[in-house]
Amino acid sequence: MSTPYKFQGWLGMDKDSVNGKMVWGDYEPKTWTESDVDIKITHCGQCGSDIHTLRAGWGYTIFPCCVGHEIVGTAVKVGSAAKKGIKVGDRVGVGAQAGSCLKPDCEDCSAGLENYCSRMVGTYNGKYADGSKSYGGYAKYTRVPSHFVFKIPDGIASADAAPMLCGGITVYAPLTHNGCGPGKRVGIVGVGGLGHFGLLFAKALGADKVVAISRTRSKESDAKQMGADDFIATDEDKDWAKTHRQTLDLIVSTVSSPKMPLGQYFRLLKTQGQFIQVGAPEDKIPSFSAFALIAKGVKFGGSSIGSPAEIDAMLKFAAEKKIKPWIVTRPMKDANQAVLDLEDGKARYRYVLVNEPEGAHL
Amino acid sequence: MSTPYKFQGWLGMDKDSVNGKMVWGDYEPKTWTESDVDIKITHCGQCGSDIHTLRAGWGYTIFPCCVGHEIVGTAVKVGSAAKKGIKVGDRVGVGAQAGSCLKPDCEDCSAGLENYCSRMVGTYNGKYADGSKSYGGYAKYTRVPSHFVFKIPDGIASADAAPMLCGGITVYAPLTHNGCGPGKRVGIVGVGGLGHFGLLFAKALGADKVVAISRTRSKESDAKQMGADDFIATDEDKDWAKTHRQTLDLIVSTVSSPKMPLGQYFRLLKTQGQFIQVGAPEDKIPSFSAFALIAKGVKFGGSSIGSPAEIDAMLKFAAEKKIKPWIVTRPMKDANQAVLDLEDGKARYRYVLVNEPEGAHL
Repeated sequence: MSTPYKFQGWLGMDKDSVNGKMVWGDYEPKTWTESDVDIKITHCGQCGSDIHTLRAGWGYTIFPCCVGHEIVGTAVKVGSAAKKGIKVGDRVGVGAQAGSCLKPDCEDCSAGLENYCSRMVGTYNGKYADGSKSYGGYAKYTRVPSHFVFKIPDGIASADAAPMLCGGITVYAPLTHNGCGPGKRVGIVGVGGLGHFGLLFAKALGADKVVAISRTRSKESDAKQMGADDFIATDEDKDWAKTHRQTLDLIVSTVSSPKMPLGQYFRLLKTQGQFIQVGAPEDKIPSFSAFALIAKGVKFGGSSIGSPAEIDAMLKFAAEKKIKPWIVTRPMKDANQAVLDLEDGKARYRYVLVNEPEGAHL
Repeated sequence: MSTPYKFQGWLGMDKDSVNGKMVWGDYEPKTWTESDVDIKITHCGQCGSDIHTLRAGWGYTIFPCCVGHEIVGTAVKVGSAAKKGIKVGDRVGVGAQAGSCLKPDCEDCSAGLENYCSRMVGTYNGKYADGSKSYGGYAKYTRVPSHFVFKIPDGIASADAAPMLCGGITVYAPLTHNGCGPGKRVGIVGVGGLGHFGLLFAKALGADKVVAISRTRSKESDAKQMGADDFIATDEDKDWAKTHRQTLDLIVSTVSSPKMPLGQYFRLLKTQGQFIQVGAPEDKIPSFSAFALIAKGVKFGGSSIGSPAEIDAMLKFAAEKKIKPWIVTRPMKDANQAVLDLEDGKARYRYVLVNEPEGAHL
């Protein structure tokens, strides 16, 4: 079905694309169905997943691949069977998920856990049931099933909303799911794209104490402005695991290094505390002793993005609490350089690519 | 303070004691306080911890050591400040814990989580605040703070009650704490002393399905009689992790081998399922990929014995449901051979040492 616009974006052609070598080109979007929405992209946040995928670090990448799954833009075409409340002209967003089976007999989808459905389709590098590929947001337009399209509340700027749709929800979901709020002390490991959202959300959710955990003190001042009440520098603070032992109810870990001092992180937990990993290392995590879990009855869990209901709740919460992420906007035309800078750890704390007026960005 | 009875038991004098070389002898019990209870031991179950401790496999063992922490007997002396409801002549029991700080400002003790108190005193190989040592139940008498002494309900035979006090509670607590009951599918890894309690309790708690997970099918018939609806043999069933993937809400693992196929166990869990480790390996657990936790939002937790309130609840539940553990009673005088047989995996499924009439057992 033809459209008056073309689907064009930055395409990774092979693993080398991560080295600043994505190329601008046309691609074929998913086959249109009446439950889909076409979005003219205004903003797309950059996520660590983009890098993992471009270099095929998590396994198979279906090249050519257009990454980017923190998308905000304008709905330009809305199918007749799209979910209620989305109409042409609306400001909408898409996160890391663009599909799931949505069948009534799916335990996950029927329970509102679409993000864990085994037929989950990523916003890029995925395949829909009909065989067509998904392409992400380093692009001018995208086509996505409406179940995974969200209206952006008026109170949030588009550039701020974009990184919430993956980076934000990835920490918001485990924080809220595991009781972050008054009476709880919460640690966030890593002060980066995800971690900075962790600090912002944990504070806004009313945790008694929010502790930033990083390797060095280089981001201490920033972390405290984001909401951290305390800061632990694991490469610099002597005996930190002992000094701060049994002080936290919940830790959300956003780092993705297989070298993380997991056994020492566990020591920070109070009895029946929980450590939730959201950063996904390409390698196995370090081995540890089961006593680390048994002795205090603690749990080591994982969490993956969030469900559509959780994303809607997060956007509403962020608007109410006036959550303001720390972002740096960059022109979409500079996507290659932004990938290199993200990989170099330069982002403070999330790059958001911005499409310039039609035709201007190449 | 003198007593008309002597404290005598089987003493491990060094690591070699695990090889059938405990010796019978006198020892000095904890210093008497008015909140203590002296118990004339009739029964003592044998726990894997006894072996780990005799060979100092978990670290430091304070020799001489009298092991055994599944104790049932008769209260023969009850302090004036002992907890209400215990009087001389009562049939009482003691599990793996004989002390904690019990201070109002202790987060764990005040929350009814005495089993996680950092001042937890083991029933053997422990030290009380006053410096006196704790000695276990391979003995004629024991002295224990009354907070950790339980009345045994009339409906449970002493020989059956004994192994519940550590083996039973170690699986009962994580099952009940993590929602085992109607609507849930529950797996138990290992069909041994702990695992057989796991099957009995999971069934009695009303789980929709109870699955025994063992290396071979040698215990399948037994497991099914204990309540298992299905059986997985991980060394024999081809592609078992794939065949049974995403079928269980909760798994309690009672095995203590560092070779366990952890990543494959995780595959058995449904979305947001939980794997709770209660068997404590002497070595580190195998490394695994964080994706195993993240992809389905699952949790890997630990659990250690249970609180006094949970032990009371378990005993009441076991009496109501007429839980009948599979035990083999053996004379206390055969404790050394029983240790060897337990280490050889011969127990079906828990040995309970029985004191013969006064003076007869040596």
